[in-house]
Amino acid sequence: MFTAPPPTRPLQFASDNYSGICPEALDYFLKANQGDVPAYGDDEWTQKASDAFRNIFEIDCEVFFVFNGTAANSLTLASLCQSYHSVICHELAHVETDECGAPEFASNGSKLLLAQGDNGKLDPADVERLITKRTDIHYPKPKVISLTQATEVGTLYTTDELAALSGLARHHGLKVHMDGARFANALVASGKTPAELTWQAGVDVLCCCGTKNGMGIGEAILFFDKALAADFAYRCKQAGQLCSKMRFISAPWLGLLETGAWLRNAEHANRMAAYLEQQLGQIPELKILFPRQANGVFVQMPQLLIDELYRRGWKFYTFIGSDGARLMCGWNTTIEAIDELVADIRDAVC
Amino acid sequence: MFTAPPPTRPLQFASDNYSGICPEALDYFLKANQGDVPAYGDDEWTQKASDAFRNIFEIDCEVFFVFNGTAANSLTLASLCQSYHSVICHELAHVETDECGAPEFASNGSKLLLAQGDNGKLDPADVERLITKRTDIHYPKPKVISLTQATEVGTLYTTDELAALSGLARHHGLKVHMDGARFANALVASGKTPAELTWQAGVDVLCCCGTKNGMGIGEAILFFDKALAADFAYRCKQAGQLCSKMRFISAPWLGLLETGAWLRNAEHANRMAAYLEQQLGQIPELKILFPRQANGVFVQMPQLLIDELYRRGWKFYTFIGSDGARLMCGWNTTIEAIDELVADIRDAVC
Amino acid sequence: MFTAPPPTRPLQFASDNYSGICPEALDYFLKANQGDVPAYGDDEWTQKASDAFRNIFEIDCEVFFVFNGTAANSLTLASLCQSYHSVICHELAHVETDECGAPEFASNGSKLLLAQGDNGKLDPADVERLITKRTDIHYPKPKVISLTQATEVGTLYTTDELAALSGLARHHGLKVHMDGARFANALVASGKTPAELTWQAGVDVLCCCGTKNGMGIGEAILFFDKALAADFAYRCKQAGQLCSKMRFISAPWLGLLETGAWLRNAEHANRMAAYLEQQLGQIPELKILFPRQANGVFVQMPQLLIDELYRRGWKFYTFIGSDGARLMCGWNTTIEAIDELVADIRDAVC
Amino acid sequence: MFTAPPPTRPLQFASDNYSGICPEALDYFLKANQGDVPAYGDDEWTQKASDAFRNIFEIDCEVFFVFNGTAANSLTLASLCQSYHSVICHELAHVETDECGAPEFASNGSKLLLAQGDNGKLDPADVERLITKRTDIHYPKPKVISLTQATEVGTLYTTDELAALSGLARHHGLKVHMDGARFANALVASGKTPAELTWQAGVDVLCCCGTKNGMGIGEAILFFDKALAADFAYRCKQAGQLCSKMRFISAPWLGLLETGAWLRNAEHANRMAAYLEQQLGQIPELKILFPRQANGVFVQMPQLLIDELYRRGWKFYTFIGSDGARLMCGWNTTIEAIDELVADIRDAVC
Repeated sequence: MFTAPPPTRPLQFASDNYSGICPEALDYFLKANQGDVPAYGDDEWTQKASDAFRNIFEIDCEVFFVFNGTAANSLTLASLCQSYHSVICHELAHVETDECGAPEFASNGSKLLLAQGDNGKLDPADVERLITKRTDIHYPKPKVISLTQATEVGTLYTTDELAALSGLARHHGLKVHMDGARFANALVASGKTPAELTWQAGVDVLCCCGTKNGMGIGEAILFFDKALAADFAYRCKQAGQLCSKMRFISAPWLGLLETGAWLRNAEHANRMAAYLEQQLGQIPELKILFPRQANGVFVQMPQLLIDELYRRGWKFYTFIGSDGARLMCGWNTTIEAIDELVADIRDAVC
Repeated sequence: MFTAPPPTRPLQFASDNYSGICPEALDYFLKANQGDVPAYGDDEWTQKASDAFRNIFEIDCEVFFVFNGTAANSLTLASLCQSYHSVICHELAHVETDECGAPEFASNGSKLLLAQGDNGKLDPADVERLITKRTDIHYPKPKVISLTQATEVGTLYTTDELAALSGLARHHGLKVHMDGARFANALVASGKTPAELTWQAGVDVLCCCGTKNGMGIGEAILFFDKALAADFAYRCKQAGQLCSKMRFISAPWLGLLETGAWLRNAEHANRMAAYLEQQLGQIPELKILFPRQANGVFVQMPQLLIDELYRRGWKFYTFIGSDGARLMCGWNTTIEAIDELVADIRDAVC
Repeated sequence: MFTAPPPTRPLQFASDNYSGICPEALDYFLKANQGDVPAYGDDEWTQKASDAFRNIFEIDCEVFFVFNGTAANSLTLASLCQSYHSVICHELAHVETDECGAPEFASNGSKLLLAQGDNGKLDPADVERLITKRTDIHYPKPKVISLTQATEVGTLYTTDELAALSGLARHHGLKVHMDGARFANALVASGKTPAELTWQAGVDVLCCCGTKNGMGIGEAILFFDKALAADFAYRCKQAGQLCSKMRFISAPWLGLLETGAWLRNAEHANRMAAYLEQQLGQIPELKILFPRQANGVFVQMPQLLIDELYRRGWKFYTFIGSDGARLMCGWNTTIEAIDELVADIRDAVC
Repeated sequence: MFTAPPPTRPLQFASDNYSGICPEALDYFLKANQGDVPAYGDDEWTQKASDAFRNIFEIDCEVFFVFNGTAANSLTLASLCQSYHSVICHELAHVETDECGAPEFASNGSKLLLAQGDNGKLDPADVERLITKRTDIHYPKPKVISLTQATEVGTLYTTDELAALSGLARHHGLKVHMDGARFANALVASGKTPAELTWQAGVDVLCCCGTKNGMGIGEAILFFDKALAADFAYRCKQAGQLCSKMRFISAPWLGLLETGAWLRNAEHANRMAAYLEQQLGQIPELKILFPRQANGVFVQMPQLLIDELYRRGWKFYTFIGSDGARLMCGWNTTIEAIDELVADIRDAVC
């Protein structure tokens, strides 16, 4: 969906995965590096991190840790589908646009059916159209609704919107997968509890991203319906997603969760994005493209301006075939960096 | 793409795969049922049928016989792609809309990228847009252009149009696959030779349909570039597409080719479609939707008329979400059936 | 498992798939070639053939028709397994030795775990060893016992033996798949009913071969537990195993079943094999390798004799790495052919 | 292959993946955690680590970093095979016994053909038997020889043995994959250079394990024949093996390589294993099972002794179905731990 930014200066709003590891995650990582520990998750860190998720989400869910978000999403979708089933997602969904066919590979052929909707959010009517469009066996049977929270364009599903989609899913026998690449950002922005924003709103499985939230490597998958997790550990193993020294994923997760850093990091990133939006909103040459609700600001700017910013060393993604820029804030984004960017923009547009 | 017609009367314009086996194919089928013959294609019928294709297409190509068109298309695409590659096809292509994810399954995950174009034909500019849109590894690398001749809406690619697409393919390192579900219909309509309409126009592989052309079961795959066929026989075997009593596919093919029935059948079907189009064109309540160039007539008609025709026992497919009807003619369609349909339409619209 | 016979004279004991179509199957095939008929199995022949199976097997099973045995076996196994599960089969099983990895392909990775056992039959103790050997996730969890009836070496499982294996399966949560490449031969040899030899003995799914029983193309899959067949039609479609002109598979099946030819053909083949065994048993240079219980005779003979028979134009498979020959009889094997073979052997060994 | 040890005391000889991160790897890991850095490997750490491999192996190879050894092996094998090809490996190979079908999954069906050989090493004669056994399309065509260095039973291939196997591969058109789960241990034990032990001996691709060598997470894949690496980055992405914050894998690798820790760690582990072997060799109740050449000692001991050691809290794997124990030493194994184990054994056997 996005063109890669030219690699130059350290100044960046390209992605929250350009950031390093936050202090709390690092602290637990280092603590976990003591002595010998059984491999493959049979260790105390993994047990504690799993329990922390269960406490925070107020449900006895099944928790798995894998290496990255592409794996989390695609293995989860594969577990909810057979190869001849299909997954309904937004046409801008990361699973469709930026995973190089990972869901199709993991599931051995499940098709993604693309629904539309404003602000990067699935329109329930269009989702229902795809579900009910055909019932013949030449059309892969829809089995999953996959949605991203926060969305790929930085907006949020309300709990009512989630309930509408999951109600639709329930009615037609589908399951609901939430790609939580920026779940923490959505969570703190929504003012809801983790439970309210997921299983209480009908979400069956959440892929919760640690990497963009301040970790180095590692995602968590939460099956709220434990029956859906049957034999999922085998799937992870077979797909090369079983970490032998699991503690180095689970301990940083525990660090994020126990210290509250996962929320603070997200709040900070959101706040920086709000500040950035507020600053950019005052520049008449720019136009904010989507409601800024999490940690990304999407802004229309003249191509000449984009080129000039790149020339000055700024890194960010642009939309293919348009003059839009995606500006992401992370746990470590600074006011100073924003002010510098805004100053450069003001300077360039003059 | 289409809703199934209600199953009632024997009167049908639903599909050319509702027809039985034509006399010439049956004759060779029965001749082949003599004595014991080595299995798996190591027989004279298969040798002769392969040679007949080579003679008719004027090239020393590799020929394979498989059971049906879904298998022919998906195994061929899989042989031209790795799982992380992509195939560019029209948004109306059968491989996209009506094969239940078969290409994704056979290739273990290759994505289909959907291009647009009028009259069911790929627009080279849109194809090039998809090829050049991105070069990052999050986007599955385009490797094949797949086109259907005649198209899913009954139109034809000219040899110039084919050359434009294959030139584009060559330029960007892609291969060209032709879904020839109705290749014979296109061939006789085009006035070109088989060679001109395929490899001389840059087509690398042709899937040539026997079932819709008058056979009971069986398709042929022609690799014009023999290097692309390396180990393809293993692929067929592994995918359950190696017929043990191969003669019962290859002998009818020989019958079609040696007697010229493949051309006569196609000519007849095209002529019937032309007559049907001419008759329907005189009814003001109807509108022909696409240029009728092969054996299908696509016509807009009021929903009430569609319902009434179904009520009277006619079978045909309608377009999803529109008031269009697809009326296909086969090798055995009769003037009488057409006249009867037209009379029913005239009667019903009054 | 076997080396291919040199292709020479029409005289053959190579395989029951070298035979043509028997009269009864052909008769129904030709009857089915009347008029236009809805595609994809929505026709009367398919309905009747399915019902015939239900009547004969005395159970309301789900019936599917596919093109060949490799597809039948591999799609069935894939429907009983996820990719990270495993299938226990005999080390001589066709799914292991002669399908070029078809089960692994259809299932996207299920491993076959090889059990041993005398006379080509699974030894329950060895099966249980494989089931209980490990429970860690580095070992693909066993989910299916696959057995062949009659076996690859021409022997039969008794109903007691079947019950022992299916009891084991039930106890450990596995399903039972029967590869019935020569099921009819086993059936008539056993003196049991179809029900007794399958679901009453704990078999969950039967792949029943028509091609080796006198048809040209076509296999039937019977899911005795209908729940296991959920969405199986989609799987067939996606894998290129949905025949558009289905009547040309189902009508010959109906012919075999309604006329009793499936039993007569099998009885004849078994009787010919018994006669062949009896004749060969009198030649001191030969040694019968396995109890002859169906339509195949496995005989040890000197390599020089094998070479001489090949030189004289006989076709048959030999065992890799041994001096054994597999001699298969079909529905059309004649006493004369047997006598001629025996005479040639007697002549050659002198 | 192994039963899991009961999880009790911190005392362990279970696996070199129970160890934590060594100081050098950690040092670079922490250094890499400075500032924002482009994602997906487009960073200086990854560039430098790749170059370090090229320098050390004295060849301009293609280098990829993935998360774990299962992924490294299975993606590499998949890149050398199509689904209908096969891989020849030792019957004790990790890819066969302990990856839950990962190679079959990644390749969508390639079969592993199991060869035998003493001391966990492939016997060239048996490998050649498997390559030449059959040429029919019912047998998946052999395309790769996969070998493990050091082997699963702690032995080493000499460069002559490697040359014999790769010569065989070259002769028959196969490629050679080396599973280097303990490559560094083999390297220092062999006295050879990295080049001599790999590409100069005919190895095409090496999967080199960082995790067992002192890292937390991360493997390197070296394609010595760069042509074989075409589009491999897409494969990694699609399979969920592209690390976004790549620096946290590549920087520790650079730490291991630049400081020489990868060799020192391996030397230490080997030396500890030699000491352990020497100590155990003096206990008459025990029997060393394989020549100890790297960092593992395989020893036969009475079941009662095994039980007693487990009772005392020792962790180690046992061989399934035998009274053998695998005792692995890591970069942090101490003389004290060995002495304590030996003392416990001496105490228990009295």
